[in-house]
Amino acid sequence: MPDTANTNFTVTTGELPGSKKIYVRSENDAGVRVPMREIHLHPTANEAPLRVYDTSGPYSDPTAEIDIYKGLAPVRRDWIVGRGDVEAYEGREIKPEDNGNVEEKYLAPEFPVRTRPLRAKQGANVTQMHYAKKGIVTAEMEYVAVRENLGRRVLAEKLARDGEPMGAVIPDYITGEFVRDEIAAGRAIIPNNINHPETEPMIIGRNFLVKINANIGNSAVSSSIAEEVDKMVWSTRWGADTVMDLSTGRNIHNTREWIIRNSPVPIGTVPIYQALEKVNGVAEDLTWEIFRDTLIEQCEQGVDYFTIHAGVRLPFIHLTAKRVTGIVSRGGSIMAKWCLAHHKESFLYTNFEEICQIMKAYDVAFSLGDGLRPGSIADANDEAQFAELRTLGELTKIAWEHDVQVMIEGPGHVPMHKIKANMEEQLKHCHEAPFYTLGPLTTDIAPGYDHITSAIGAAMIGWFGTAMLCYVTPKEHLGLPNRDDVKVGVITYKLAAHAADLAKGHPAAQMRDDALSRARFEFRWEDQFNLSLDPETARDFHDQTLPKEAHKVAHFCSMCGPKFCSMKITQDVRDYAAAKEEAETGMKQMSDEFKKRGSDIYLPKDEVQAAE
Amino acid sequence: MPDTANTNFTVTTGELPGSKKIYVRSENDAGVRVPMREIHLHPTANEAPLRVYDTSGPYSDPTAEIDIYKGLAPVRRDWIVGRGDVEAYEGREIKPEDNGNVEEKYLAPEFPVRTRPLRAKQGANVTQMHYAKKGIVTAEMEYVAVRENLGRRVLAEKLARDGEPMGAVIPDYITGEFVRDEIAAGRAIIPNNINHPETEPMIIGRNFLVKINANIGNSAVSSSIAEEVDKMVWSTRWGADTVMDLSTGRNIHNTREWIIRNSPVPIGTVPIYQALEKVNGVAEDLTWEIFRDTLIEQCEQGVDYFTIHAGVRLPFIHLTAKRVTGIVSRGGSIMAKWCLAHHKESFLYTNFEEICQIMKAYDVAFSLGDGLRPGSIADANDEAQFAELRTLGELTKIAWEHDVQVMIEGPGHVPMHKIKANMEEQLKHCHEAPFYTLGPLTTDIAPGYDHITSAIGAAMIGWFGTAMLCYVTPKEHLGLPNRDDVKVGVITYKLAAHAADLAKGHPAAQMRDDALSRARFEFRWEDQFNLSLDPETARDFHDQTLPKEAHKVAHFCSMCGPKFCSMKITQDVRDYAAAKEEAETGMKQMSDEFKKRGSDIYLPKDEVQAAE
Repeated sequence: MPDTANTNFTVTTGELPGSKKIYVRSENDAGVRVPMREIHLHPTANEAPLRVYDTSGPYSDPTAEIDIYKGLAPVRRDWIVGRGDVEAYEGREIKPEDNGNVEEKYLAPEFPVRTRPLRAKQGANVTQMHYAKKGIVTAEMEYVAVRENLGRRVLAEKLARDGEPMGAVIPDYITGEFVRDEIAAGRAIIPNNINHPETEPMIIGRNFLVKINANIGNSAVSSSIAEEVDKMVWSTRWGADTVMDLSTGRNIHNTREWIIRNSPVPIGTVPIYQALEKVNGVAEDLTWEIFRDTLIEQCEQGVDYFTIHAGVRLPFIHLTAKRVTGIVSRGGSIMAKWCLAHHKESFLYTNFEEICQIMKAYDVAFSLGDGLRPGSIADANDEAQFAELRTLGELTKIAWEHDVQVMIEGPGHVPMHKIKANMEEQLKHCHEAPFYTLGPLTTDIAPGYDHITSAIGAAMIGWFGTAMLCYVTPKEHLGLPNRDDVKVGVITYKLAAHAADLAKGHPAAQMRDDALSRARFEFRWEDQFNLSLDPETARDFHDQTLPKEAHKVAHFCSMCGPKFCSMKITQDVRDYAAAKEEAETGMKQMSDEFKKRGSDIYLPKDEVQAAE
Repeated sequence: MPDTANTNFTVTTGELPGSKKIYVRSENDAGVRVPMREIHLHPTANEAPLRVYDTSGPYSDPTAEIDIYKGLAPVRRDWIVGRGDVEAYEGREIKPEDNGNVEEKYLAPEFPVRTRPLRAKQGANVTQMHYAKKGIVTAEMEYVAVRENLGRRVLAEKLARDGEPMGAVIPDYITGEFVRDEIAAGRAIIPNNINHPETEPMIIGRNFLVKINANIGNSAVSSSIAEEVDKMVWSTRWGADTVMDLSTGRNIHNTREWIIRNSPVPIGTVPIYQALEKVNGVAEDLTWEIFRDTLIEQCEQGVDYFTIHAGVRLPFIHLTAKRVTGIVSRGGSIMAKWCLAHHKESFLYTNFEEICQIMKAYDVAFSLGDGLRPGSIADANDEAQFAELRTLGELTKIAWEHDVQVMIEGPGHVPMHKIKANMEEQLKHCHEAPFYTLGPLTTDIAPGYDHITSAIGAAMIGWFGTAMLCYVTPKEHLGLPNRDDVKVGVITYKLAAHAADLAKGHPAAQMRDDALSRARFEFRWEDQFNLSLDPETARDFHDQTLPKEAHKVAHFCSMCGPKFCSMKITQDVRDYAAAKEEAETGMKQMSDEFKKRGSDIYLPKDEVQAAE
């Protein structure tokens, strides 16, 4: 595809309605300032602004200078270099195959700025897990601690705990030490390639807020670099915690560079997609050398986590033959084809230690891919799926020996009654490494609505312990998501993740629900819009029925009309009840008075009953 | 609002894409012919058409003559009259207050046909529960048995059972006798007013398919009769099993008449809404006499179930005073205000026996309203809610003494970890009467997406045993749903109900998932669209990326492009595996041959391992 449009980048910037971008400083590390969003409420609310988690990066900071051609400021660079264990080097030269051997006229422009990549010095290991195991609280760990607390100060804002954590152990307040210990134990990861210093650190783990991932990426059929950069910015604006670039076809290398240099969130990829392009789409022609070279290429660019389908082993492939939908994972099917064609064990499996060696030099995290995940309700929880899962558990142990951070990918399509077993098997066999699931979709019959069929499964598995939920858009199974689909997918997954946080009993999760419900009850329409996950849509829907500005302060809504509002009546009930209570208190005083005088005339009814 | 447009009715008719309307006859009752939809698949599928449940009534039958001014044919009339226990009578005269004392120029036209209403003969009881307790299998019961089996024949199509029924007892095959016994036990209801003979009977109960309800209705602020009739037809086209007319404001009586006469599904109402209009919206002015008169008015019109908030008792009201969102149910807040204003017990509670007397003369079912349901996450599962629930259980027992059918309404806003307790408490205190819940919404922070926040809760509570799910549209909390919102709400709830059926292990539920997944795997795009809950949207989304007709048979989709399709690769893997198996079988034969000759050269590898 010619990509002539990609020199005209337009991305969405500015603060969200009613919101102010703030930076919260760490009490323990002067260099750490964590972005948050403060939602300001109407003066009549008499409430402090609500602080919410903010994934949108500098794009929502009106003081930040945004230039897609320069990329974001490398906010983590000083920390990375300051640890003294990395070196800059020339790096691998870009080859024509990196962009799928695209003809000159179709070649997308290179990102204008080229920086020499960093890697660990000889013998060094620069992963967050490595530091954690050594007892070090890095700036990144301190950063995520502040971030997870949503700006709360220790002790000052201790909240009542509610919820059923299902085995998660979420403290009242997150400290850098707690983050460190979770990472050291493998229960959480901070995906942060040292060559992606533009990221604002975030953590993925069962004992933290549930995160979501948005997939973007062009395919051979459609979309350009400008569109993909826009989708990346757009998805983080609405709450994507990480973004996966699943581009296929040509220009993969150059597309990715533009995305990474402009991304404030970790970027994940599936390197086998690009490797396959390098061999013209013929799976049998893949080699370990080509794959290895692709890994290094992407490590140097700054990809933060790699989906690697090393669990698709030769002996498991026949287990899928009788499935209704066989192998639906792209990566899984590529590897299956390779294994069968050569009748050899997967080169990802046999070279796993070397993969670890590469990844620890850049701190790229594993997202161990579920290449044999079920693609239909009929195939859920079968032996192919669980055989692979157990293998991912073995590989996790190996990666941890190298201090490489690991998360585990999960299904897919699973009916509700089989979801819990997925989480339990994962925890058991993968040693509590974070689980990262796609949905799961709880039925196959609603294409066009699979963001919803999957949000049901995602909310449930998030509650059960999944650390990150990969979004599904309304276009799933049907086409590539456009900008609107990306937003719907992100908001849908934010609400599913939040429902999970509530159910797990995250100490600060319910603050936003309560603030919004108070606004709703008090007819503070503007606050209701601004506190919602998607203020624009909430306002738009309201205005379709009651467009006038005056209605924004009206003590009624279009559902009931002015005379017939249950919330209004309830307020009357409250006033009435309060007045009544006052009257009864007065009566009680009178009664006490009379009792003193030896009369029971005014004894309240309940005391009469109690006396009987 | 003047309603001049309401003489121009437009409703959507015709078969759904790829579908044929059929009627399945009962083997036991010649008068019973149950509408279903057959989805026809591409010849290459080599599969019988899939039969699916069809709520759309005659509107999707191309041979039916549709005339909104005449209403639907009274398909149940012969059964009702044939039982010999009803009498026609003059009925109550329509009063100006029935339409909110609307001025002549704003009065919506009356429905052109007026039939004398029926009621039970003196001393008779015409409820399905009454017949059931007497051991009678009515035509209605036989009808729903055929309907619940989705056209399957006994034994011939016995399916493997999967699922976790959570205490539900769903037989492999539903018989009229089973239906009768469930109704007699109070575990299921067939809401079918004898004055709504246009209905196609359906059943609501834990041991049957999960049903959904769609709310329509005009308010003082907007919408006309024509719009509401259109929404009724539209919502049943997409799968609404019942429709509630929640109209407020003027013209309530006339609006309802048009809806009922044209509705193939049971219609529910909240009679207190109309009663309140009759006293100009002043709750304190309500009287038992006005309410009673409204009940009779609606019984004669043919309303099939009444939401009655008889559990909002005076002693419970103060329990809501400290809530974040107080009383959010419209009916609940009206009754609360009345109780406080008069400092008297609710007239719905004190006159409950007389309500039963009225309802059993028409076979109107109770939907005992949850007037104290939580309106926010903060208020879920509190004492106000459960005190009312226990009262609904008491009232259920009273209704059952009169053989009046009962279902129980449930919340509302409930975080995931508190949903199960709702179902358990309901089963325990309401003696297994069917539960009918609104959502519940699992978070408060996503106005504009509350169809999704609630679909999560709805799918879960449906799995746990809720018999009917009241839909929530994207406009919830923000405005009145338009036609598009109604469709999105219905499809969202259909998929939630279906996810629940799958999880419960309904014997025929997975057939549709499997058929769609096979179509997906085999790139039968047309079949994939037609088998989906919303064929139009599925096709539209597909065509946004790949519009050409040729792409509908293409062995790829826009997500991966032609060269890179996992499903295509899987097919290659299967072929390869099959060829390999064949080769190995050949090798095995060779090996056997050689063994006979005393050589082990060709012994397959696994046998070698087993021998070691």
